[in-house]
Amino acid sequence: MVQLNKSVSLNMDVRGMEQSATIAINDRCRELQSEGRMVYRLGLGQSPFPVPKPVVDALKLHAHEKAYLPARGLRELRRAVAEFHRRHDGVEALPENVMVGPGSKELMFLLQLVYYGQLLVPTPCWVSYIPQAQIVGRKIGLIPTTFETCWQVTAEQLRQRFEGQHDPYRPRILVLNYPGNPHGCTYSAEELQDLAEVCNKYEMVILSDEIYGQTHYKGEHVSMARYCPERTIISSGLSKWCGAGGWRLGTFTFPSSLDWLRDAMIAVASETYTSVSAPIQYAAVRAFMGGTDIERYLWHSRRILDDLGHRLARMLAEAGARVHPPDGAFYLFPDFSPLREKLAARGINDAVTMCEKLLEDTGVAVLPGRDFGRPPEELTARMAFVDFDGAKALTASERIPLDQPLPDDFADTWCHNVLSGVRLLVDWVKK
Amino acid sequence: MVQLNKSVSLNMDVRGMEQSATIAINDRCRELQSEGRMVYRLGLGQSPFPVPKPVVDALKLHAHEKAYLPARGLRELRRAVAEFHRRHDGVEALPENVMVGPGSKELMFLLQLVYYGQLLVPTPCWVSYIPQAQIVGRKIGLIPTTFETCWQVTAEQLRQRFEGQHDPYRPRILVLNYPGNPHGCTYSAEELQDLAEVCNKYEMVILSDEIYGQTHYKGEHVSMARYCPERTIISSGLSKWCGAGGWRLGTFTFPSSLDWLRDAMIAVASETYTSVSAPIQYAAVRAFMGGTDIERYLWHSRRILDDLGHRLARMLAEAGARVHPPDGAFYLFPDFSPLREKLAARGINDAVTMCEKLLEDTGVAVLPGRDFGRPPEELTARMAFVDFDGAKALTASERIPLDQPLPDDFADTWCHNVLSGVRLLVDWVKK
Repeated sequence: MVQLNKSVSLNMDVRGMEQSATIAINDRCRELQSEGRMVYRLGLGQSPFPVPKPVVDALKLHAHEKAYLPARGLRELRRAVAEFHRRHDGVEALPENVMVGPGSKELMFLLQLVYYGQLLVPTPCWVSYIPQAQIVGRKIGLIPTTFETCWQVTAEQLRQRFEGQHDPYRPRILVLNYPGNPHGCTYSAEELQDLAEVCNKYEMVILSDEIYGQTHYKGEHVSMARYCPERTIISSGLSKWCGAGGWRLGTFTFPSSLDWLRDAMIAVASETYTSVSAPIQYAAVRAFMGGTDIERYLWHSRRILDDLGHRLARMLAEAGARVHPPDGAFYLFPDFSPLREKLAARGINDAVTMCEKLLEDTGVAVLPGRDFGRPPEELTARMAFVDFDGAKALTASERIPLDQPLPDDFADTWCHNVLSGVRLLVDWVKK
Repeated sequence: MVQLNKSVSLNMDVRGMEQSATIAINDRCRELQSEGRMVYRLGLGQSPFPVPKPVVDALKLHAHEKAYLPARGLRELRRAVAEFHRRHDGVEALPENVMVGPGSKELMFLLQLVYYGQLLVPTPCWVSYIPQAQIVGRKIGLIPTTFETCWQVTAEQLRQRFEGQHDPYRPRILVLNYPGNPHGCTYSAEELQDLAEVCNKYEMVILSDEIYGQTHYKGEHVSMARYCPERTIISSGLSKWCGAGGWRLGTFTFPSSLDWLRDAMIAVASETYTSVSAPIQYAAVRAFMGGTDIERYLWHSRRILDDLGHRLARMLAEAGARVHPPDGAFYLFPDFSPLREKLAARGINDAVTMCEKLLEDTGVAVLPGRDFGRPPEELTARMAFVDFDGAKALTASERIPLDQPLPDDFADTWCHNVLSGVRLLVDWVKK
């Protein structure tokens, strides 16, 4: 049978492609657990917190909604998203420039599909840019960053890259993600201004992935759109700050000057996923509207993550790793290079081996830096500190006034599994 | 500004692409209504019936579910879908061969994206196959059918197409859609058997789009997978029989022999939409499980559509159109060619002009045959007879025992807008 034989009928661009690394580690953890192993799930970056109650209630209220909604998204939702970015980010977002998709990952895929030009991505970066480019048959320009610059691209670095190039004005989209996956670091307002200058000079579009914006521990997220309003697409969604990753709702907010890009994406959306699930869109209006309930939820989430993230960073630093304490999100990106000789003596010379052995020996699941576009031999790993019951932690935090710090034993009591996992990891690297 | 100028930076495969025809007509209707015009919405093929109450209740119950689900779909849902196809279609479907997507439209797009080979589509066909092929940069093989064969492809026609070809065994997927959009006709068991013979001979994969299967008015839908089990992918979902188009949940059920195609699609899913909305998947388990509530809902829906579809077909035939009374679904595909001279005298020589003038003169929205892959000059149009309050019609139907026909005035009372629209259309073509 010719037809049913896989050797002939697969698109070369997707052949051999496996599931997304974050999803694969999740499946692997499930497997180990079903074998009765104790597993510390620091692999998948899923918010530990529940969806805020008013948002869940809104979903119940709109459960009967059954109509196909417009491909660009429900009008009330686009209005709420624009208002959200005006309120939080001080930018002139317009409802007609908002596009709603089934996750911002899908919107990024559509962007790569419709845009004819190059994506520039500083590494370490989120796991899906590179495979998405592969699916559409393109190549991404990776910009390696360093520990010293908090894994962030600098204006100077971009300038050096373009100056003297034969074609410095080729069509380009620069991707910025802050607070950043996989490291939790963010850009300061000054750094964004410097980057904006280079982007203006070289006429780049910016995809500003701000999905972790509202998880900034101090609530001081600043959007690139403040400095580059006519070039910046803001990416956001419900997955991170609102704890609703599994709901699948992401948003892109375009400047009016990129209407042609927005419209091409909407046309492709209408021929593929059609529109985002109607009940989910109605519920999302409630989430983006915000209000005191949701603000309180955010502040308690931030305090818990801040406390835990800093605690873990100290533990890792004491064990000899290089690591930046995070500014937001729920990730740490330790670099175990200072322990290279010790690890090499145990046959560990690259990040993948390090993470595999760690999982095997201790049940602690983290992802190798390689999955985030780093060199295979660099001993970095991403740790998502999310393996705890966020609902219980929130309830406990709500008993402590927000102007006070959490007590010393808070993380040990409510985020026990994460701390145990990191203790195991620390003992393991030191042994 | 080079970068922000659309003239340089759009993928040629999507340039100039507009929104899906069915979505565009929906937007146009909304516009006319907002101008105060009376509109008869026979354009978009959206089920008139509400989502069954037990399914809505299941969504409320699972509104808090927030985890990212596996890219292939929730295990319980895949089990329920496999069981659904075993029960209704008598096929050996396995849970591990089911894939859940955000609408079967998205799954078809992924199929076109990962498969390296040709899609063969009998026309008239559903509106999105052709633009999807364009997006991925491929060409579809269209197989024109005729009114005489109920707009369906025949085994003989396929045989003639392949016999004597230089490359009769090239990788091909034949798409069959029955009961069919845009015409409501279906294949008999004998016709499917004849087609199966040709598909076996030429080693074709079959994408069997059975999303309208459960709307078959007599409840006698037969799946191609009965006759070609190892070559047939069954496409289904909640959008049509379950009234939940806006929920966005579709399913593909593969044979084990096509596991490589399934796995490639799951890999791409994990890098694009990730997984289908969790609360929606949990609710869908209830829908696919079925039971007496849902059976009753189906039988009342079918009786209403059967009565209305046959009534409208008679009205159109009396007005001089050629039309097949439907076997299922909620579409009619009248051919106004017998009235060609009369229409030509009014400057109407093609389907697009016919539909535009009709909408302008009467407010009746239907879609031209051209949007379904027919020649522009053919005077065909698709009419979706869905512009009525399905909830009220169901309640009224429930008062009449299922073994009785609906009274003569049922459609006039409960599907008034559809009948008025078709009366206006009939007067308009005859004038």
